[in-house]
Amino acid sequence: MKEGQGDFCVNIALVHHPVLGKKGEIIGSAITNLDLHDIARTAKTYGIDEYYIVTPYTDQQELVEEIISHWQNGHGSISNPARKEAFRLVKLAKTLEEVTAKIMAKQSQSPVVVTTSAKSQERCISFHDARKRVDTGEPTLLVFGTAHGLAPEITDTADYTLPAIEGRTDYNHLSVRAAVAIICDRLLGNWD
Amino acid sequence: MKEGQGDFCVNIALVHHPVLGKKGEIIGSAITNLDLHDIARTAKTYGIDEYYIVTPYTDQQELVEEIISHWQNGHGSISNPARKEAFRLVKLAKTLEEVTAKIMAKQSQSPVVVTTSAKSQERCISFHDARKRVDTGEPTLLVFGTAHGLAPEITDTADYTLPAIEGRTDYNHLSVRAAVAIICDRLLGNWD
Repeated sequence: MKEGQGDFCVNIALVHHPVLGKKGEIIGSAITNLDLHDIARTAKTYGIDEYYIVTPYTDQQELVEEIISHWQNGHGSISNPARKEAFRLVKLAKTLEEVTAKIMAKQSQSPVVVTTSAKSQERCISFHDARKRVDTGEPTLLVFGTAHGLAPEITDTADYTLPAIEGRTDYNHLSVRAAVAIICDRLLGNWD
Repeated sequence: MKEGQGDFCVNIALVHHPVLGKKGEIIGSAITNLDLHDIARTAKTYGIDEYYIVTPYTDQQELVEEIISHWQNGHGSISNPARKEAFRLVKLAKTLEEVTAKIMAKQSQSPVVVTTSAKSQERCISFHDARKRVDTGEPTLLVFGTAHGLAPEITDTADYTLPAIEGRTDYNHLSVRAAVAIICDRLLGNWD
Protein backbone atom coordinates (compact mmCIF):
# COMPACT_ATOMS: atom_id res chain seq x y z
CA MET A 1 0.00 0.00 0.00
CA LYS A 2 1.17 3.50 -0.71
CA GLU A 3 2.07 6.00 1.94
CA GLY A 4 -0.69 8.24 3.17
CA GLN A 5 -3.43 5.76 2.48
CA GLY A 6 -5.00 4.11 5.51
CA ASP A 7 -6.11 0.54 5.97
CA PHE A 8 -9.11 -0.57 4.01
CA CYS A 9 -10.82 -3.90 3.46
CA VAL A 10 -12.75 -4.17 0.21
CA ASN A 11 -13.91 -7.51 -1.19
CA ILE A 12 -15.54 -8.32 -4.51
CA ALA A 13 -18.20 -10.94 -5.26
CA LEU A 14 -19.11 -11.91 -8.81
CA VAL A 15 -22.51 -13.60 -8.72
CA HIS A 16 -23.60 -16.27 -11.24
CA HIS A 17 -26.85 -17.17 -9.45
CA PRO A 18 -29.39 -15.69 -8.83
CA VAL A 19 -29.05 -13.26 -11.74
CA LEU A 20 -31.42 -11.97 -14.40
CA GLY A 21 -31.88 -13.39 -17.89
CA LYS A 22 -32.73 -11.50 -21.05
CA LYS A 23 -36.43 -11.32 -20.15
CA GLY A 24 -35.88 -10.50 -16.48
CA GLU A 25 -36.30 -14.12 -15.35
CA ILE A 26 -34.05 -15.62 -12.64
CA ILE A 27 -31.25 -17.70 -14.14
CA GLY A 28 -27.82 -19.08 -13.31
CA SER A 29 -25.01 -18.05 -15.67
CA ALA A 30 -21.89 -19.92 -16.75
CA ILE A 31 -18.37 -19.04 -15.63
CA THR A 32 -16.44 -16.82 -18.08
CA ASN A 33 -12.72 -17.55 -17.89
CA LEU A 34 -11.72 -13.95 -18.56
CA ASP A 35 -13.90 -12.72 -15.66
CA LEU A 36 -11.55 -14.61 -13.38
CA HIS A 37 -8.40 -13.18 -14.99
CA ASP A 38 -9.40 -9.56 -15.60
CA ILE A 39 -11.12 -9.02 -12.28
CA ALA A 40 -8.35 -10.76 -10.32
CA ARG A 41 -5.80 -8.44 -11.98
CA THR A 42 -7.93 -5.37 -11.23
CA ALA A 43 -8.48 -6.59 -7.67
CA LYS A 44 -4.75 -7.09 -7.12
CA THR A 45 -4.01 -3.62 -8.53
CA TYR A 46 -6.46 -1.89 -6.18
CA GLY A 47 -5.57 -3.87 -3.04
CA ILE A 48 -8.86 -5.80 -2.89
CA ASP A 49 -8.78 -8.30 -0.01
CA GLU A 50 -10.57 -11.23 -1.68
CA TYR A 51 -12.42 -11.82 -4.93
CA TYR A 52 -15.22 -14.38 -4.64
CA ILE A 53 -16.71 -16.29 -7.56
CA VAL A 54 -20.24 -17.17 -6.48
CA THR A 55 -21.88 -20.18 -8.12
CA PRO A 56 -24.06 -22.93 -6.65
CA TYR A 57 -23.30 -25.38 -9.50
CA THR A 58 -20.86 -28.20 -8.76
CA ASP A 59 -19.56 -28.50 -12.34
CA GLN A 60 -18.93 -24.75 -12.50
CA GLN A 61 -17.19 -24.84 -9.12
CA GLU A 62 -14.92 -27.59 -10.43
CA LEU A 63 -14.12 -25.50 -13.50
CA VAL A 64 -13.19 -22.51 -11.31
CA GLU A 65 -11.03 -24.76 -9.12
CA GLU A 66 -9.23 -26.11 -12.18
CA ILE A 67 -8.52 -22.61 -13.49
CA ILE A 68 -7.32 -21.39 -10.08
CA SER A 69 -5.14 -24.48 -9.70
CA HIS A 70 -3.53 -24.00 -13.13
CA TRP A 71 -2.46 -20.45 -12.23
CA GLN A 72 -1.66 -21.15 -8.58
CA ASN A 73 0.15 -24.50 -8.78
CA GLY A 74 0.28 -25.62 -12.41
CA HIS A 75 2.19 -24.50 -15.47
CA GLY A 76 0.61 -21.03 -15.38
CA SER A 77 2.20 -20.30 -12.01
CA ILE A 78 5.66 -20.71 -13.56
CA SER A 79 4.99 -19.11 -16.93
CA ASN A 80 3.28 -16.06 -15.45
CA PRO A 81 4.13 -15.30 -11.79
CA ALA A 82 2.22 -11.98 -11.91
CA ARG A 83 -0.93 -13.88 -12.83
CA LYS A 84 -0.28 -16.33 -9.99
CA GLU A 85 -0.16 -13.37 -7.61
CA ALA A 86 -3.53 -12.08 -8.86
CA PHE A 87 -5.13 -15.53 -8.68
CA ARG A 88 -4.21 -15.75 -5.01
CA LEU A 89 -7.20 -13.45 -4.36
CA VAL A 90 -9.72 -15.66 -6.16
CA LYS A 91 -11.99 -17.70 -3.88
CA LEU A 92 -15.06 -19.82 -4.49
CA ALA A 93 -18.42 -19.60 -2.72
CA LYS A 94 -21.81 -21.26 -3.24
CA THR A 95 -23.88 -18.27 -2.17
CA LEU A 96 -23.52 -14.62 -1.24
CA GLU A 97 -24.39 -15.58 2.36
CA GLU A 98 -21.33 -17.83 2.38
CA VAL A 99 -19.22 -14.86 1.21
CA THR A 100 -20.46 -12.54 3.97
CA ALA A 101 -19.97 -15.31 6.56
CA LYS A 102 -16.37 -15.84 5.40
CA ILE A 103 -15.59 -12.11 5.56
CA MET A 104 -17.25 -11.95 9.01
CA ALA A 105 -15.07 -14.85 10.19
CA LYS A 106 -11.90 -13.25 8.82
CA GLN A 107 -12.56 -9.62 9.84
CA SER A 108 -14.65 -10.22 13.00
CA GLN A 109 -17.16 -7.79 11.51
CA SER A 110 -19.96 -8.15 8.97
CA PRO A 111 -19.17 -6.39 5.69
CA VAL A 112 -21.22 -3.48 4.40
CA VAL A 113 -22.83 -5.03 1.32
CA VAL A 114 -22.84 -2.68 -1.68
CA THR A 115 -24.48 -3.89 -4.88
CA THR A 116 -23.88 -2.51 -8.37
CA SER A 117 -26.30 -2.14 -11.24
CA ALA A 118 -26.65 -0.68 -14.71
CA LYS A 119 -30.00 0.76 -13.55
CA SER A 120 -30.75 3.07 -10.65
CA GLN A 121 -31.85 1.28 -7.50
CA GLU A 122 -33.09 2.10 -3.99
CA ARG A 123 -30.73 2.78 -1.05
CA CYS A 124 -28.33 4.50 -3.38
CA ILE A 125 -24.94 5.64 -2.04
CA SER A 126 -22.86 8.05 -4.12
CA PHE A 127 -19.37 7.03 -5.25
CA HIS A 128 -17.89 9.79 -3.08
CA ASP A 129 -19.76 8.62 0.03
CA ALA A 130 -18.88 4.99 -0.65
CA ARG A 131 -15.23 6.04 -1.00
CA LYS A 132 -15.37 7.82 2.36
CA ARG A 133 -16.85 4.74 4.03
CA VAL A 134 -14.20 2.50 2.50
CA ASP A 135 -11.54 4.81 3.90
CA THR A 136 -12.88 4.32 7.45
CA GLY A 137 -11.55 0.78 7.17
CA GLU A 138 -14.88 -1.03 7.68
CA PRO A 139 -15.09 -4.25 5.66
CA THR A 140 -16.96 -3.72 2.41
CA LEU A 141 -18.31 -6.26 -0.06
CA LEU A 142 -18.88 -4.99 -3.62
CA VAL A 143 -21.34 -7.27 -5.40
CA PHE A 144 -21.41 -7.56 -9.20
CA GLY A 145 -23.85 -9.56 -11.30
CA THR A 146 -23.25 -11.50 -14.51
CA ALA A 147 -25.79 -11.97 -17.35
CA HIS A 148 -28.39 -9.16 -17.11
CA GLY A 149 -27.58 -8.19 -13.54
CA LEU A 150 -28.25 -9.17 -9.94
CA ALA A 151 -31.63 -10.64 -8.97
CA PRO A 152 -33.90 -8.44 -6.78
CA GLU A 153 -33.44 -10.81 -3.84
CA ILE A 154 -29.81 -9.64 -3.74
CA THR A 155 -30.26 -5.92 -4.44
CA ASP A 156 -33.26 -5.73 -2.06
CA THR A 157 -31.30 -7.04 0.91
CA ALA A 158 -28.04 -5.12 0.36
CA ASP A 159 -27.06 -2.20 2.58
CA TYR A 160 -26.44 0.12 -0.36
CA THR A 161 -26.32 0.20 -4.11
CA LEU A 162 -23.95 2.28 -6.22
CA PRO A 163 -25.34 4.45 -9.02
CA ALA A 164 -25.16 3.10 -12.56
CA ILE A 165 -21.90 4.06 -14.26
CA GLU A 166 -22.56 6.94 -16.61
CA GLY A 167 -20.18 7.75 -19.41
CA ARG A 168 -21.03 10.49 -21.87
CA THR A 169 -23.89 8.69 -23.60
CA ASP A 170 -27.04 6.84 -22.57
CA TYR A 171 -25.47 3.51 -23.52
CA ASN A 172 -25.33 1.36 -20.38
CA HIS A 173 -24.01 -2.00 -21.51
CA LEU A 174 -20.50 -2.12 -20.07
CA SER A 175 -18.93 -5.53 -19.57
CA VAL A 176 -18.77 -6.56 -15.93
CA ARG A 177 -14.96 -6.62 -16.32
CA ALA A 178 -14.99 -2.92 -17.29
CA ALA A 179 -17.54 -2.04 -14.60
CA VAL A 180 -15.38 -3.61 -11.87
CA ALA A 181 -12.32 -1.70 -13.12
CA ILE A 182 -14.16 1.65 -13.17
CA ILE A 183 -15.78 1.15 -9.76
CA CYS A 184 -12.49 0.09 -8.14
CA ASP A 185 -10.89 3.21 -9.60
CA ARG A 186 -13.69 5.49 -8.39
CA LEU A 187 -13.60 4.04 -4.86
CA LEU A 188 -9.88 3.42 -4.48
CA GLY A 189 -7.93 5.14 -7.28
CA ASN A 190 -5.73 8.22 -6.84
CA TRP A 191 -4.59 10.26 -9.80
CA ASP A 192 -3.56 13.77 -10.88
CA MET B 1 -24.19 13.37 -25.05
CA LYS B 2 -25.38 14.77 -21.78
CA GLU B 3 -26.25 18.40 -21.28
CA GLY B 4 -23.48 20.64 -20.07
CA GLN B 5 -20.74 18.61 -21.74
CA GLY B 6 -19.16 20.14 -24.78
CA ASP B 7 -18.14 18.48 -28.01
CA PHE B 8 -15.17 16.18 -27.85
CA CYS B 9 -13.53 13.81 -30.28
CA VAL B 10 -11.66 10.94 -28.68
CA ASN B 11 -10.57 7.86 -30.63
CA ILE B 12 -8.99 4.64 -29.43
CA ALA B 13 -6.39 2.48 -31.18
CA LEU B 14 -5.53 -1.02 -29.96
CA VAL B 15 -2.17 -1.96 -31.43
CA HIS B 16 -1.15 -5.57 -32.21
CA HIS B 17 2.09 -4.66 -33.99
CA PRO B 18 4.66 -3.35 -33.16
CA VAL B 19 4.35 -4.35 -29.51
CA LEU B 20 6.72 -5.86 -26.96
CA GLY B 21 7.10 -9.55 -26.15
CA LYS B 22 7.96 -11.09 -22.80
CA LYS B 23 11.66 -10.33 -23.19
CA GLY B 24 11.20 -6.83 -24.60
CA GLU B 25 11.55 -7.96 -28.23
CA ILE B 26 9.30 -6.54 -30.97
CA ILE B 27 6.44 -8.90 -31.80
CA GLY B 28 2.99 -8.95 -33.38
CA SER B 29 0.18 -10.24 -31.16
CA ALA B 30 -2.99 -12.13 -32.05
CA ILE B 31 -6.47 -10.63 -31.93
CA THR B 32 -8.39 -11.36 -28.71
CA ASN B 33 -12.12 -11.56 -29.37
CA LEU B 34 -13.06 -10.04 -26.02
CA ASP B 35 -10.83 -7.00 -26.67
CA LEU B 36 -13.19 -6.14 -29.51
CA HIS B 37 -16.33 -6.59 -27.38
CA ASP B 38 -15.27 -5.07 -24.08
CA ILE B 39 -13.51 -2.06 -25.53
CA ALA B 40 -16.31 -1.38 -28.05
CA ARG B 41 -18.81 -1.37 -25.18
CA THR B 42 -16.62 0.94 -23.10
CA ALA B 43 -16.05 3.18 -26.15
CA LYS B 44 -19.79 3.41 -26.84
CA THR B 45 -20.48 4.24 -23.16
CA TYR B 46 -17.97 7.11 -23.11
CA GLY B 47 -18.85 8.57 -26.50
CA ILE B 48 -15.61 7.54 -28.22
CA ASP B 49 -15.70 8.48 -31.90
CA GLU B 50 -14.00 5.41 -33.38
CA TYR B 51 -12.19 2.36 -32.04
CA TYR B 52 -9.43 1.09 -34.32
CA ILE B 53 -8.01 -2.42 -34.26
CA VAL B 54 -4.47 -2.10 -35.63
CA THR B 55 -2.91 -5.19 -37.19
CA PRO B 56 -0.78 -5.61 -40.32
CA TYR B 57 -1.59 -9.32 -40.68
CA THR B 58 -4.09 -10.26 -43.39
CA ASP B 59 -5.44 -13.36 -41.60
CA GLN B 60 -5.98 -11.34 -38.42
CA GLN B 61 -7.70 -8.58 -40.39
CA GLU B 62 -10.04 -11.19 -41.90
CA LEU B 63 -10.82 -12.50 -38.42
CA VAL B 64 -11.67 -8.99 -37.20
CA GLU B 65 -13.85 -8.42 -40.27
CA GLU B 66 -15.72 -11.67 -39.61
CA ILE B 67 -16.37 -10.74 -36.00
CA ILE B 68 -17.50 -7.22 -36.91
CA SER B 69 -19.75 -8.62 -39.65
CA HIS B 70 -21.38 -11.14 -37.29
CA TRP B 71 -22.36 -8.36 -34.87
CA GLN B 72 -23.15 -5.75 -37.51
CA ASN B 73 -25.01 -7.77 -40.13
CA GLY B 74 -25.19 -11.40 -38.99
CA HIS B 75 -27.11 -13.24 -36.30
CA GLY B 76 -25.49 -11.23 -33.53
CA SER B 77 -27.02 -8.01 -34.83
CA ILE B 78 -30.50 -9.45 -34.23
CA SER B 79 -29.83 -11.34 -31.01
CA ASN B 80 -28.06 -8.40 -29.38
CA PRO B 81 -28.86 -4.94 -30.82
CA ALA B 82 -26.89 -3.19 -28.05
CA ARG B 83 -23.78 -5.08 -29.13
CA LYS B 84 -24.46 -4.12 -32.74
CA GLU B 85 -24.49 -0.49 -31.66
CA ALA B 86 -21.12 -0.85 -29.92
CA PHE B 87 -19.57 -2.69 -32.86
CA ARG B 88 -20.47 0.23 -35.14
CA LEU B 89 -17.43 2.00 -33.64
CA VAL B 90 -14.97 -0.79 -34.47
CA LYS B 91 -12.70 -0.11 -37.47
CA LEU B 92 -9.69 -1.87 -38.88
CA ALA B 93 -6.30 -0.35 -39.76
CA LYS B 94 -2.96 -1.79 -40.84
CA THR B 95 -0.81 0.75 -39.01
CA LEU B 96 -1.09 3.59 -36.54
CA GLU B 97 -0.22 6.00 -39.39
CA GLU B 98 -3.32 4.79 -41.22
CA VAL B 99 -5.38 5.55 -38.10
CA THR B 100 -4.08 9.11 -37.77
CA ALA B 101 -4.60 9.68 -41.52
CA LYS B 102 -8.21 8.50 -41.25
CA ILE B 103 -8.91 10.76 -38.28
CA MET B 104 -7.22 13.65 -40.11
CA ALA B 105 -9.44 13.01 -43.15
CA LYS B 106 -12.60 12.86 -41.02
CA GLN B 107 -11.85 15.75 -38.63
CA SER B 108 -9.74 17.96 -40.93
CA GLN B 109 -7.20 18.09 -38.14
CA SER B 110 -4.44 15.75 -37.01
CA PRO B 111 -5.22 14.07 -33.68
CA VAL B 112 -3.12 14.61 -30.59
CA VAL B 113 -1.57 11.16 -30.11
CA VAL B 114 -1.55 10.03 -26.47
CA THR B 115 0.02 6.69 -25.66
CA THR B 116 -0.60 4.62 -22.55
CA SER B 117 1.82 2.44 -20.63
CA ALA B 118 2.17 0.41 -17.47
CA LYS B 119 5.55 2.08 -16.96
CA SER B 120 6.39 5.79 -16.72
CA GLN B 121 7.48 7.35 -20.01
CA GLU B 122 8.76 10.66 -21.32
CA ARG B 123 6.45 13.52 -22.42
CA CYS B 124 4.04 12.63 -19.65
CA ILE B 125 0.70 14.44 -19.45
CA SER B 126 -1.35 14.14 -16.25
CA PHE B 127 -4.86 12.70 -16.44
CA HIS B 128 -6.27 16.08 -15.38
CA ASP B 129 -4.40 17.94 -18.12
CA ALA B 130 -5.36 15.33 -20.72
CA ARG B 131 -8.98 15.70 -19.61
CA LYS B 132 -8.78 19.48 -20.07
CA ARG B 133 -7.33 19.06 -23.56
CA VAL B 134 -10.05 16.59 -24.51
CA ASP B 135 -12.65 19.11 -23.38
CA THR B 136 -11.28 21.71 -25.81
CA GLY B 137 -12.69 19.50 -28.55
CA GLU B 138 -9.38 18.82 -30.35
CA PRO B 139 -9.25 15.33 -31.87
CA THR B 140 -7.41 12.92 -29.60
CA LEU B 141 -6.13 9.42 -30.29
CA LEU B 142 -5.58 7.20 -27.24
CA VAL B 143 -3.18 4.39 -28.11
CA PHE B 144 -3.14 1.12 -26.18
CA GLY B 145 -0.78 -1.80 -26.65
CA THR B 146 -1.45 -5.52 -26.43
CA ALA B 147 1.07 -8.17 -25.22
CA HIS B 148 3.72 -6.43 -23.07
CA GLY B 149 2.97 -2.94 -24.30
CA LEU B 150 3.65 -0.55 -27.17
CA ALA B 151 7.01 -0.64 -28.95
CA PRO B 152 9.34 2.37 -28.41
CA GLU B 153 8.87 3.45 -32.03
CA ILE B 154 5.26 4.27 -31.10
CA THR B 155 5.77 5.78 -27.65
CA ASP B 156 8.80 7.80 -28.86
CA THR B 157 6.86 9.53 -31.61
CA ALA B 158 3.63 10.22 -29.68
CA ASP B 159 2.73 13.74 -28.54
CA TYR B 160 2.12 12.64 -24.96
CA THR B 161 1.96 9.62 -22.76
CA LEU B 162 -0.40 9.12 -19.84
CA PRO B 163 1.01 8.02 -16.47
CA ALA B 164 0.77 4.35 -15.56
CA ILE B 165 -2.50 3.56 -13.75
CA GLU B 166 -1.79 3.25 -10.07
CA GLY B 167 -4.19 1.47 -7.78
CA ARG B 168 -3.31 0.99 -4.13
CA THR B 169 -0.51 -1.50 -4.66
CA ASP B 170 2.61 -1.78 -6.79
CA TYR B 171 0.97 -4.43 -8.98
CA ASN B 172 0.83 -3.06 -12.54
CA HIS B 173 -0.57 -5.90 -14.63
CA LEU B 174 -4.06 -4.71 -15.52
CA SER B 175 -5.70 -6.21 -18.59
CA VAL B 176 -5.85 -3.80 -21.52
CA ARG B 177 -9.65 -4.07 -21.30
CA ALA B 178 -9.57 -2.78 -17.71
CA ALA B 179 -6.98 -0.10 -18.56
CA VAL B 180 -9.14 1.28 -21.38
CA ALA B 181 -12.17 1.40 -19.06
CA ILE B 182 -10.28 3.21 -16.30
CA ILE B 183 -8.63 5.71 -18.65
CA CYS B 184 -11.91 6.52 -20.43
CA ASP B 185 -13.47 7.12 -17.02
CA ARG B 186 -10.61 9.35 -15.85
CA LEU B 187 -10.69 11.43 -19.04
CA LEU B 188 -14.42 11.46 -19.73
CA GLY B 189 -16.37 10.18 -16.72
CA ASN B 190 -18.49 12.34 -14.40
CA TRP B 191 -19.63 11.10 -11.04
CA ASP B 192 -20.61 12.22 -7.53
